[in-house]
Amino acid sequence: MPEKFKDASPDEIDKAMQVAARASEEFKKFSLEQRAGFMKAIAGNLENAGEQLISMAMKETHLPQARLQSEKMRTVFQLNNYAEACAKGDWMQVSMDTADQNRTPPKPDIRKMMVPLGPVVVFGSSNFPFAYSTAGGDTACAFAAGCPVIVKAHPAHAGTSQMVAELIMEAVQTCNMPGGIFTHIHGAGIETGKQLVLHPHTKAVGFTGSFAGGKQLFDWGNQRKVPIPVFSEMGSVNPVFLLPGKLKNSAAEVAAMYATSITLGVGQFCTNPGLIIGIGGEELDKFIAALGQKIKEVAPAVMLHPGIASAFNKNKERALGQKGVHVAAVSDVQAKENEGWPTIAFTSAQVFLANPLLHEEVFGPYSLVIKCNSNEELLDVTKALQGQLTATVMASVEDIHAHRSLIEAIKNICGRLLYNGVPTGVEVCLSMQHGGPFPATTDSRFTSVGADGIKRFARPLAFQGWPNELLPDELKDENPLKIWRTINSKITPPGL
Amino acid sequence: MPEKFKDASPDEIDKAMQVAARASEEFKKFSLEQRAGFMKAIAGNLENAGEQLISMAMKETHLPQARLQSEKMRTVFQLNNYAEACAKGDWMQVSMDTADQNRTPPKPDIRKMMVPLGPVVVFGSSNFPFAYSTAGGDTACAFAAGCPVIVKAHPAHAGTSQMVAELIMEAVQTCNMPGGIFTHIHGAGIETGKQLVLHPHTKAVGFTGSFAGGKQLFDWGNQRKVPIPVFSEMGSVNPVFLLPGKLKNSAAEVAAMYATSITLGVGQFCTNPGLIIGIGGEELDKFIAALGQKIKEVAPAVMLHPGIASAFNKNKERALGQKGVHVAAVSDVQAKENEGWPTIAFTSAQVFLANPLLHEEVFGPYSLVIKCNSNEELLDVTKALQGQLTATVMASVEDIHAHRSLIEAIKNICGRLLYNGVPTGVEVCLSMQHGGPFPATTDSRFTSVGADGIKRFARPLAFQGWPNELLPDELKDENPLKIWRTINSKITPPGL
Repeated sequence: MPEKFKDASPDEIDKAMQVAARASEEFKKFSLEQRAGFMKAIAGNLENAGEQLISMAMKETHLPQARLQSEKMRTVFQLNNYAEACAKGDWMQVSMDTADQNRTPPKPDIRKMMVPLGPVVVFGSSNFPFAYSTAGGDTACAFAAGCPVIVKAHPAHAGTSQMVAELIMEAVQTCNMPGGIFTHIHGAGIETGKQLVLHPHTKAVGFTGSFAGGKQLFDWGNQRKVPIPVFSEMGSVNPVFLLPGKLKNSAAEVAAMYATSITLGVGQFCTNPGLIIGIGGEELDKFIAALGQKIKEVAPAVMLHPGIASAFNKNKERALGQKGVHVAAVSDVQAKENEGWPTIAFTSAQVFLANPLLHEEVFGPYSLVIKCNSNEELLDVTKALQGQLTATVMASVEDIHAHRSLIEAIKNICGRLLYNGVPTGVEVCLSMQHGGPFPATTDSRFTSVGADGIKRFARPLAFQGWPNELLPDELKDENPLKIWRTINSKITPPGL
Repeated sequence: MPEKFKDASPDEIDKAMQVAARASEEFKKFSLEQRAGFMKAIAGNLENAGEQLISMAMKETHLPQARLQSEKMRTVFQLNNYAEACAKGDWMQVSMDTADQNRTPPKPDIRKMMVPLGPVVVFGSSNFPFAYSTAGGDTACAFAAGCPVIVKAHPAHAGTSQMVAELIMEAVQTCNMPGGIFTHIHGAGIETGKQLVLHPHTKAVGFTGSFAGGKQLFDWGNQRKVPIPVFSEMGSVNPVFLLPGKLKNSAAEVAAMYATSITLGVGQFCTNPGLIIGIGGEELDKFIAALGQKIKEVAPAVMLHPGIASAFNKNKERALGQKGVHVAAVSDVQAKENEGWPTIAFTSAQVFLANPLLHEEVFGPYSLVIKCNSNEELLDVTKALQGQLTATVMASVEDIHAHRSLIEAIKNICGRLLYNGVPTGVEVCLSMQHGGPFPATTDSRFTSVGADGIKRFARPLAFQGWPNELLPDELKDENPLKIWRTINSKITPPGL
């Protein structure tokens, strides 16, 4: 059971936002290096945290120790990686166009850099107690952008969140940062979140979770007198396309890869492959049999919290109850209370196309195989899919050449396109795109994984006609920060 | 009077969007060079258009020939400039992280580039018949991003819009582009715009105009089943801060600059300076007298259309009718029907702070001077301002050092910060930021002027684990397009 904390009162929330707004002005005065140092201090505190942190997370999330250890180290890596990106300054996309007095009319001097949006509200996610919660990706990006952060703890792991919050507050102290740049708030009800999103001092929101939750925050953000960007990552079904050449040569190998991917972390990843699509026939049946065989061998495990387990059961049963949907395999071990029972089902493209319910995510260890009658039907299914975080093509090179229109249709619906891989396991690097067309996320133009996520919480500000001595360091002629800049439309290294 | 055209029927609009969606798939197959060539062909057609185009625009907008000629050439410049940026590819922010098989777990190969959002609906603006209408900035950016464009002509210059549309269609033909990448639609009523924004095939919207119009489009865009980005540029009052040192030494010079800026184009620019803020006293009174003297000498002129002229009169009279607002000067020449009568008013900070109506834009040749009692009041006024496209500081270097908090507060509310200049005249260059905090625009993170405006209509797509031969040219190892790319987090020139 999670630790219990008192919900923040409306007055406490208002006070936190007032404090954050004032701290925002102070935080801006710190250099990129200082911001990065602060983030690295949080990373250090997290890395060196005692074993009680992992114990608390195990107790609250039922995730195994090894997974939590590695998620903690991923979180440390993210903080350090975004800190380096922050200090390096590429994300600021500094551009300078110099004056030309001889032109008619004279061309002014204009220089542009990124400035922070202001206080960012981050909602802890249920499935990543470290990496997408209190000191997770959204928090790290917001700090890197120069924004104060107000975290609303996820009630399912409030104790873990509280412990991580204390590590952040310790770093605030040791780095002599303004106290108000970080606030940790508890609140189990919807009202806490609503007040935070609607507060006039809130300038942006980061969220990872369900469609219902993320869409509600997005709507609140847009309905404000002054609308704000709400970055909700709402998961997806992550379709996998099995093309004939690959299926023929590697059905057993693909089945083994996917049995692991579908059941990894009891299927509790937003990149979990929930749909597998191929052309029906002997080869696909062999694949389903091989996948089913592997799934039977995967034991059920306890899900993050009872609410998630009961939602998984309800959604899975509802999907399996649809006309034309058949169970292909379940784990040989019967699931106990709060456990997720690994399950594979199959249906026809016709059934899938006619039933919107089957397009929805079933969060947990479940995947639906769709048998298409033809390449045309494969294309129809693809075009009928909603926006996705990822899509995966399992294919030979020849398959790709033979399915050009299909590949283009798949590109239209996803943020990350994999070839002969599995979508679970999201690499933290600059080239990562973790954000897809709605409803995967509320803004497909941004990512919530990788240092480009910093750009979510900043906006460009142009300076026109300012004397060099009065410009921010980022824009000064002599480039004291030694950052890459675009000068008169040419990308220019520091020193030139 | 504007030319009259038949409004598009709901069926015609639906058909146009279907055609655009199909063309979107075809358009993607053209290279960056081919897109750029197409944009340059439009620029060429516009540059070489016969005198009838300017005559039509003069008849419909009442703008003088010289202004329209120069706006036309600005539009040609924009198309060519964004075409060059398109081909150069920096805007795509290509990033590659290469694989590392020796890491545990192995690091995958991930490469990211921008892909087009899909069909973009552009609303012609009333005040820029060329530069922010049919072949204007939004259209050029959308084409550069690889998106088909559906233009809704502004009914006040529908004939001009029709002529420019034909020049674009000519370029579609000569460049062998898919026909559906450009559609021109007439529609005087609100229903045409509503259907266009709500159509499922519409993927983004560009708009320049009033707050009421832009906010409505934004709300429609967000209320869709699948929300889309709506970039509304809704103007602002563009505050000018007169600091004491500057005022003391250059009151007459500043007054002359601002009399010209306030009345330029009969005040019909979104960057028109509508508020001038200073510390009350002898120096500010001298400035107001000098500004008034200059304004008296500026003759009224016909505004864009009767609706704009009547709105100007109504809004100006309403502002002047507020308690505590006093007229400082009006033009010596009485305005005739449909003309804008240059007017300067003044009030106290106290009156301004207590009356939200005085914060609203009066679109036309009108500016309100605010007299503050102290630096504290100056800061209070600044913090009470809404989001702005621009803010201008008229100041000596010493003034800036003496007003640090004020400058920081000004940065918070604007997208472009000018020093000792005038906000009118928006340079088309990469460093320009034309987009400010709401309500200046609906998304302060993007610009509608300068080649960075292309980024509004594209989103990142990451490719994971793809063999080199199957990757788009932008991402291939050998870099056939010779673009700058970030490789393993290092900005890397072509050839490396």
